[in-house]
Amino acid sequence: MSDGEAVYLGIDVGGTSVKLGLVDDSARTLGKLSFPTNAAEGPSQAVARMREHADRLLDEAGLATDQVTACGLATPGTMDIPAGLLLDPPNLPGWDNYPVRQRVQDVVERPTYLQNDANAAAFGEYWAGAGKGADSMVLWTLGTGIGCGIIIGGMIVRGEHSHGSECGHIIIDMDGKRKCGTGQYGTLEAYASATALVARAKEALDAGRESSLRTKLDAGAELTPILIGEAATAGDPLADELVMDTATYLGIGTTSVMHTIDPNLFLLGGAMTFGRHDTELGRRFLQRWKDEVKHRGFPIPASRITFDYASLGNDAGFIGAAGYARDKHARDGVSR
Amino acid sequence: MSDGEAVYLGIDVGGTSVKLGLVDDSARTLGKLSFPTNAAEGPSQAVARMREHADRLLDEAGLATDQVTACGLATPGTMDIPAGLLLDPPNLPGWDNYPVRQRVQDVVERPTYLQNDANAAAFGEYWAGAGKGADSMVLWTLGTGIGCGIIIGGMIVRGEHSHGSECGHIIIDMDGKRKCGTGQYGTLEAYASATALVARAKEALDAGRESSLRTKLDAGAELTPILIGEAATAGDPLADELVMDTATYLGIGTTSVMHTIDPNLFLLGGAMTFGRHDTELGRRFLQRWKDEVKHRGFPIPASRITFDYASLGNDAGFIGAAGYARDKHARDGVSR
Repeated sequence: MSDGEAVYLGIDVGGTSVKLGLVDDSARTLGKLSFPTNAAEGPSQAVARMREHADRLLDEAGLATDQVTACGLATPGTMDIPAGLLLDPPNLPGWDNYPVRQRVQDVVERPTYLQNDANAAAFGEYWAGAGKGADSMVLWTLGTGIGCGIIIGGMIVRGEHSHGSECGHIIIDMDGKRKCGTGQYGTLEAYASATALVARAKEALDAGRESSLRTKLDAGAELTPILIGEAATAGDPLADELVMDTATYLGIGTTSVMHTIDPNLFLLGGAMTFGRHDTELGRRFLQRWKDEVKHRGFPIPASRITFDYASLGNDAGFIGAAGYARDKHARDGVSR
Repeated sequence: MSDGEAVYLGIDVGGTSVKLGLVDDSARTLGKLSFPTNAAEGPSQAVARMREHADRLLDEAGLATDQVTACGLATPGTMDIPAGLLLDPPNLPGWDNYPVRQRVQDVVERPTYLQNDANAAAFGEYWAGAGKGADSMVLWTLGTGIGCGIIIGGMIVRGEHSHGSECGHIIIDMDGKRKCGTGQYGTLEAYASATALVARAKEALDAGRESSLRTKLDAGAELTPILIGEAATAGDPLADELVMDTATYLGIGTTSVMHTIDPNLFLLGGAMTFGRHDTELGRRFLQRWKDEVKHRGFPIPASRITFDYASLGNDAGFIGAAGYARDKHARDGVSR
């Protein structure tokens, strides 16, 4: 533990698991834990378990509850952040109209601040990860859907109705026939998410395109972004094209966000990053993304903005929630 | 004049004319003037005339130069706002690499603050026009090109490289063959600007579509947005379709900006507003724009955001420049 420094509890609620961590003023993680959300059992059991797990973290760090300055809570939307309310979150069935901020605050007994999970992850990267030192940045997370968080001058672009930074739902093809997870046509998510990559692969195979993927599927493998990435790495032309098209689509969406925000930095995180800097595929993916923005966008921002992978992985959410609570508590001194 | 209240000088430099106004602390315009930019003669003569015209305004208001707290200067880009520099502005040929902020400050002898013209217009509407009372808002201006200005929590989204709020250049059709004024394909400007409306009208006529426009052109009329708007008002189906398609395209671009910023308010201004609330066409245009966002976007922000016309017309730029100088001067106390 860090002597004398203020400590924050960060909680990141996902559809599959709840992640908790204790983070100090210097953005160091003092300890972390996770447990299955079991979302279908409703919010009460999960919230009760947050207290148990927070206590374990505090014990391990040799801290008492009142040594935690504040708690940051990140959840998926839809939500009303100022009201501390979950509205109708598709990833947390049964948690609708749930006053999650107050319930968690009651249980952890510390001032609690609510934020959207993608925004919290962006704030985590900004405070403690690959975004350190940027004045403004955008984090994309590619997974089942596409998440996004925007920071301008140290502030999260939350929006007036808690729907800011939902850039997975910007439209890249107005006549597009592809549909994203929320049923909208032609959105970035409908083209560049993991779900979309698998759908595009399936279409290409159904259309009779040659690929080593076919042999693997015939042998019982499941069509996943990992399988497609492996095939691309092994030199399969179709798999490579599908992966690189994903980067191109992301570049198109990024161009629109660049022409809106003009940040210092775009970061890419989430489950689907093709090995990041560690693989040739990951490096080519980054390059293709950047090249598309340069091809489509104004030269001044396109050439000056940095494009990189995020660095905190799955910890970004609880670290960012803790960091957001730290900022908000210092600024407002009241929890919300 | 307003007794005792602080007064600001706003200057809005356009490709055609320079507009100046004295604006007080309550956003009241005490006097305004304009003169032709004669951009091709270079910046020095225009800047010298700014002083003459400012003096005339001060005389008429019974004020001395040192009673002006600060000067706000709005120019078209490209520019480097923190450096006070014009880079390579297409609408001001010969003004490239010109330290416009310092030169104007030298001449008006008041602390001078530079901002992009579209951002200044948005700030004007936010401070004194249809955006009064909004926490955050987006102003679109439809004209030869498409301008945009974004205000979040009272701050202009200027961007890290002075390229923020350039939402006319977001991509609405990634495979689009239409090109905008800056040579980018598939951008909103390539579909919804006045230039694009005329181009689409020409294409439809060339393709043999029936329209009363043809008779007018044969009689020597010029194909303009005004002519198309008049034909639409008179019941011409093609003209009506072309105008309403413009609103649809604007709605597609607005959906993407909504999913990024989630503001309280979208405003529409510029030269091409089809009579605004005063005509049936203007009212239908506003409705079509709003309907497209509701059709494409998340229901919570789409149903809660207000869509309206801007109210300050051509005065938005100098009023916003004055208001920006007022804010910036109070915050920083140094000019830049």
